[in-house]
Amino acid sequence: MKVNQPVRLTMVGGGSWATALVKILSENNVSVKWWLRKKSDADHIKKFGHNPSYLSDVQINTRKVKVCTKIRDSVKDSEYIILAVPAAFIGDALTGLKPTDFVGKSVVSAIKGMIPDANQLVTDWVSEQYDVPVERMSVIAGPCHAEEVALEKKSYLTIASQNPTCAAAVADLLRCRFVQTTPVDDIYGIEYSAVMKNIIALACGITRGLGYGDNFQAVLVSNAMQEIRRFVDAVYPKHRDLSGSAYLGDLLVTAYSPFSRNRTFGTLIGRGYTIQSAQAEMNMIAEGYYAVKSIYEVNQQFGVSMPITNAVYAILYERAAPTTEMNLLTGVLM
Amino acid sequence: MKVNQPVRLTMVGGGSWATALVKILSENNVSVKWWLRKKSDADHIKKFGHNPSYLSDVQINTRKVKVCTKIRDSVKDSEYIILAVPAAFIGDALTGLKPTDFVGKSVVSAIKGMIPDANQLVTDWVSEQYDVPVERMSVIAGPCHAEEVALEKKSYLTIASQNPTCAAAVADLLRCRFVQTTPVDDIYGIEYSAVMKNIIALACGITRGLGYGDNFQAVLVSNAMQEIRRFVDAVYPKHRDLSGSAYLGDLLVTAYSPFSRNRTFGTLIGRGYTIQSAQAEMNMIAEGYYAVKSIYEVNQQFGVSMPITNAVYAILYERAAPTTEMNLLTGVLM
Repeated sequence: MKVNQPVRLTMVGGGSWATALVKILSENNVSVKWWLRKKSDADHIKKFGHNPSYLSDVQINTRKVKVCTKIRDSVKDSEYIILAVPAAFIGDALTGLKPTDFVGKSVVSAIKGMIPDANQLVTDWVSEQYDVPVERMSVIAGPCHAEEVALEKKSYLTIASQNPTCAAAVADLLRCRFVQTTPVDDIYGIEYSAVMKNIIALACGITRGLGYGDNFQAVLVSNAMQEIRRFVDAVYPKHRDLSGSAYLGDLLVTAYSPFSRNRTFGTLIGRGYTIQSAQAEMNMIAEGYYAVKSIYEVNQQFGVSMPITNAVYAILYERAAPTTEMNLLTGVLM
Repeated sequence: MKVNQPVRLTMVGGGSWATALVKILSENNVSVKWWLRKKSDADHIKKFGHNPSYLSDVQINTRKVKVCTKIRDSVKDSEYIILAVPAAFIGDALTGLKPTDFVGKSVVSAIKGMIPDANQLVTDWVSEQYDVPVERMSVIAGPCHAEEVALEKKSYLTIASQNPTCAAAVADLLRCRFVQTTPVDDIYGIEYSAVMKNIIALACGITRGLGYGDNFQAVLVSNAMQEIRRFVDAVYPKHRDLSGSAYLGDLLVTAYSPFSRNRTFGTLIGRGYTIQSAQAEMNMIAEGYYAVKSIYEVNQQFGVSMPITNAVYAILYERAAPTTEMNLLTGVLM
């Protein structure tokens, strides 16, 4: 990392995770072009050095970070493109780009979700749409709430890529005073696990909303780890230790933290809100809402036993009553 | 369980877990002799049907539950003896009993700790002291805060015994309207894991007290699961799934819950309290304080890599500064 020329990087997305990553990157010798959809947010950052919509207390180093609302301009000349928008919006965000815009660049997904309807992992979708070779793809995972990065709380990220050189390079870019990074190779296992943890956080929220307590949540999360393992081992068989912080840790920070939007969304559902009113109540999108549909549909080919995912799917997509579904679920957990 | 004659059982201990177990047992056809050390508590229960010292909102069914302060009287005629006092006090509680008092009885440990100095698991110690055959020993484990049992929140217990018939019988005794039970065979793995989770909860508390956040705690708990696996696999090699609720679940409920006395004790230490002042501040004993010494000493024979246990040991027994130890620890976690 200690080279004279700064690494040229594009950040795609204006939310809290994108803002936190920009903050981390600014600790290092990186020159960031930051693409945001909202022109008013971009202008505000340019003028005041703060993102007015998310983590607005984070000071943006505008010497290193240039904002931009044109996607082609923002990716031109970059060596790395980090994607940090909700999976449902990635197609919109990249509209206008062609495979030639990605030539020679490495793409890093910081997205924890799947492409709706296509039911593809983000890395698979990007590879397919833009001819990015898999050895230039990586994902950023790990238990890391953006809100705590803003506060410079000690955090850990795991960078996964099938290409060890790529994983190590991205790990170097993101390592800083308050962030430790580890490169690993299980890109698909980590991506699927990150998607599923949002479903589990949603389930935790639903049971909270229904009045279940800590004892039950501990059992739910333990059973969830087994469900994640069954699914990931079926979809991408590989030797992996799911108690690593990119798997279990990521699930814990989401399932147990008040910052988790998936858990909050679930809590509202458990309390009897409709999906529409729960979504209206929240300012952010709950990735788990889309994730559960994708995972449920992918699992139609694999037939893995997934009682928790099935219960959440039934509640969100088949209008099943949360009380009934969770009551049934209590009978199969142990 | 649906027999006419009630099962005769002795509960040893007057704390919150003993009180919660008495409540659960009273849901079934069980006749309980409840031994408490404090005569004033015993008298209060007899007169008012509530334990004045712990979970005092729980109504005790005095038709099924008879209190008693003489240990020999309370175990006489019982088929089961459940031990539910802190490990450090079990010798005191059973003073006066001889191996002959245990003949034909099953002993169930609801204790999550080790015998200090002897560094023995409770079941090993009881077997040795009172000649109780291992096939008559079982342990009650699982993520279960007494406070939530009092509220009849849905909870799960795991009953472990090397004797499947014994595990199943105890599981039957404890299964009720709001408690699900599962019999399993990994008695030593579950006992060690239950002891270690108190050390981890203490570590979580210390880091909380020092200002670390949710991101860090998720990494700490993930690494802790790996540390527990390394230790348990070294001490009692056996195929086991540590994401079961008796292992991971039990750790989670302790590490993440505000009810956890070990976590609270750790938080005080992290904030700079001395051990004496932290103990004075709390009304209950923190099992993890003793557990870390036992596990640390047991591990001298095994040499398992245990950075979290070692850090907690250094802080509590070698007067190491929490800031320094936890700072060193952050470097080895990933």
